[in-house]
Amino acid sequence: MEFLEGVMKKETLEIGELLKEDMTGKMVKINGAVHTIRDMGDIAFVVLRKRDGLLQCVLEEGNLKFNLKELKEAATIEVKGIIEKEQRAPHGIEMHIRDIRILSEPEEPMPLAISKWKLNTSLEAKLNMRPISLRNLRERAKFKIQEGIVKGFRDFLYQEGFTEIRTPKIGAKGAEGGSNIFKLDYFHRPAVLAQSPQLYKQMMVGVFDRVFETAPVFRAEKHNTKRHLNEYTSLDFEMGYIEGFEDIMETETGFLQYTMKLLEKEYAKELKMLDVVLPDTERIPVVRFDEAKQMVSEKYRRNMKNPFDLEPEEEVLISELFKEEHDADFVFVTHYPSKKRPFYAMDDPEDSRFTLSFDLLFRGMEITTGGQRIHDCQMLLKKISDRGMTTEGLEQYLDTFKYGMPPHGGLGIGLERLTMKLLGEDNVRETTLFPRDMSRLEP
Amino acid sequence: MEFLEGVMKKETLEIGELLKEDMTGKMVKINGAVHTIRDMGDIAFVVLRKRDGLLQCVLEEGNLKFNLKELKEAATIEVKGIIEKEQRAPHGIEMHIRDIRILSEPEEPMPLAISKWKLNTSLEAKLNMRPISLRNLRERAKFKIQEGIVKGFRDFLYQEGFTEIRTPKIGAKGAEGGSNIFKLDYFHRPAVLAQSPQLYKQMMVGVFDRVFETAPVFRAEKHNTKRHLNEYTSLDFEMGYIEGFEDIMETETGFLQYTMKLLEKEYAKELKMLDVVLPDTERIPVVRFDEAKQMVSEKYRRNMKNPFDLEPEEEVLISELFKEEHDADFVFVTHYPSKKRPFYAMDDPEDSRFTLSFDLLFRGMEITTGGQRIHDCQMLLKKISDRGMTTEGLEQYLDTFKYGMPPHGGLGIGLERLTMKLLGEDNVRETTLFPRDMSRLEP
Repeated sequence: MEFLEGVMKKETLEIGELLKEDMTGKMVKINGAVHTIRDMGDIAFVVLRKRDGLLQCVLEEGNLKFNLKELKEAATIEVKGIIEKEQRAPHGIEMHIRDIRILSEPEEPMPLAISKWKLNTSLEAKLNMRPISLRNLRERAKFKIQEGIVKGFRDFLYQEGFTEIRTPKIGAKGAEGGSNIFKLDYFHRPAVLAQSPQLYKQMMVGVFDRVFETAPVFRAEKHNTKRHLNEYTSLDFEMGYIEGFEDIMETETGFLQYTMKLLEKEYAKELKMLDVVLPDTERIPVVRFDEAKQMVSEKYRRNMKNPFDLEPEEEVLISELFKEEHDADFVFVTHYPSKKRPFYAMDDPEDSRFTLSFDLLFRGMEITTGGQRIHDCQMLLKKISDRGMTTEGLEQYLDTFKYGMPPHGGLGIGLERLTMKLLGEDNVRETTLFPRDMSRLEP
Repeated sequence: MEFLEGVMKKETLEIGELLKEDMTGKMVKINGAVHTIRDMGDIAFVVLRKRDGLLQCVLEEGNLKFNLKELKEAATIEVKGIIEKEQRAPHGIEMHIRDIRILSEPEEPMPLAISKWKLNTSLEAKLNMRPISLRNLRERAKFKIQEGIVKGFRDFLYQEGFTEIRTPKIGAKGAEGGSNIFKLDYFHRPAVLAQSPQLYKQMMVGVFDRVFETAPVFRAEKHNTKRHLNEYTSLDFEMGYIEGFEDIMETETGFLQYTMKLLEKEYAKELKMLDVVLPDTERIPVVRFDEAKQMVSEKYRRNMKNPFDLEPEEEVLISELFKEEHDADFVFVTHYPSKKRPFYAMDDPEDSRFTLSFDLLFRGMEITTGGQRIHDCQMLLKKISDRGMTTEGLEQYLDTFKYGMPPHGGLGIGLERLTMKLLGEDNVRETTLFPRDMSRLEP
């Protein structure tokens, strides 16, 4: 009988292992994809692409019985050789090849010059050939940084006593209502895809006090813009026992501070590769919605079209103003009008036309919507009835409040948008692994 | 202008903070939900439920101007008082209340006796009142442990050099094909919900070498059993440069070992609460599919109905046999018949009726399916054509192989099933926050 006892140490090394100690003169084995081949006649440079970077390998004529012509770019190989110092090579080392074993070969030459530093290809072409275009080091670095953001979100919230939950994506009714809901047939019953985990995370505040989820949400919005996706990742949290909605904004500020530090520490290589300048998160200004509109209208001599709505251009101008006057990359805009917020938003007791809610703008774009929620059952029922909504499908949600709920609030952060603005990209599809929009359902 | 500078220290303390140092005699503030009230006349015990456990508070007559009759179970309150040692109370401390502030009140008395140690309620009733039933400490503990499993999966794979990815849940074509696919209308185009991230994670092996995802998957299976869900969380990974499919099983073994240690360390309270005996993961036996069937047939004098299929009863018997003979809770069953595996599974070069694949059985139930995948483009095209399938909708997937892919493989673990077997539950709905099955779409 054979038994498995866990991960066995591999003979092949990763780049990190080659750099941990001085390996000069040592014979090692390494594998990877052939990123480039530069044939100089009696010497050839074969650069391997590995998950943690590039490794230059040198093939000297006569050193082994191997015809370089047999080696193709994009082949995957295992090489054995001696490590030498070489300042001009990535990481300052190179391998002098003694043996090559081909693991797999491509059928055709690469359709994109993925080994170039900058992939000079249209977004459309990059998305059509996603599995190939992402082999470019700078393209893939974007998604390492995205990984870091999610890691930061989770680690910070764990530290703050939050519980991670998983709520269903198929349901009987949408959380926010409205028309932007994907519908499907669920064993001959009508069902919808979750626009947000909103109602579920609120229900779970009664159980765990503080909860979060990082999961896909689905919006059937008919917007074909640079900032809309029909499926995206929402970083959601909800917390009980708040003293006011400022608690939510403080927690988001804490998350941003924690995450920027984490990126600096664990993703420095990728930040450098993409020339990312991390934003200042030490102090984030807070401004009321109506004041922000007023400030922008005065400073940029702009007519206010609608006092109860914020247009994308106004978001850009608010950000510009705060960048200019306070050198701030982020701005919390608070007290959004009630009409613009969902039924569960808590109205400001001092002026019920506004809510105890906020958006976070980052370099001109809304990346978060959040606020305090109604925790009183009667207040919630009244709001639902005032809006001409029905309680149908909300029975268990309403039960949660009937049987007691603490004051609470939370937020949702669009992961792809946050990544986009952090990296200075101008289209959210650049920071989405496989974007879904009105015209794109593949790959 | 107001600025936010991160998370501000709260005046109210959590239980963990009360236990870090000796707080005896100190006046503190704490908040929570009223779990139980025991009125003894001139003294009353008010037990608060917080995210990290229970806290006993004592209300002595005359100590404050507060009528106990005004306090309801399930209210949320903030209390101020003095901490004293009390061996009979949870954590060995209690608070002598000096002040009470009511934060919120329930409308109606609890429909379930959630403060009982064991919630004597049918599964059906528990699921119908999910936001309430989970307020029971033992019910909620299940999902803390589930959180720990996911944490273990991610932390272990990060450590092993994996990248976390997020793949789309709406697509043009199902990964595995077949009839168990939910269909939806995507802006007047037919679309489906992802049964698995299979094709995407393979595509990403060409980019990151090793990837994982923890996300929902959707199966329109018409099974109404104790072990089927129509939406569940799949813990998926895929890794390149493998020497054989044993690498995949070793990595899974490593994950299980890591996670059991993590649970022991960080979730000891919950394990104790639920009397969980963690399984032995040090050595996991491996047996071929055909041999396992043979062994079971001989030992339990059972006719083999179909040599190419494993029935649920056989899974139970294989587990029984290995428990009895090797004291093993887990068994890897390898070399599943080709007919039973999807098109991308790698056939055994020594006998193409079987594949280089495996299932992991845990206490009688399949919790993982995995194996080596085909990385050769021609081999893949042949398999697709041999099966009478079409390459339509697989263009970008096939391109991945056309342009070079390393030998690779991976697996998918059903999170709810793993949690269920770990906790000794007999229905997978017990370990699903909001289960979706053929008859359940709410809450």
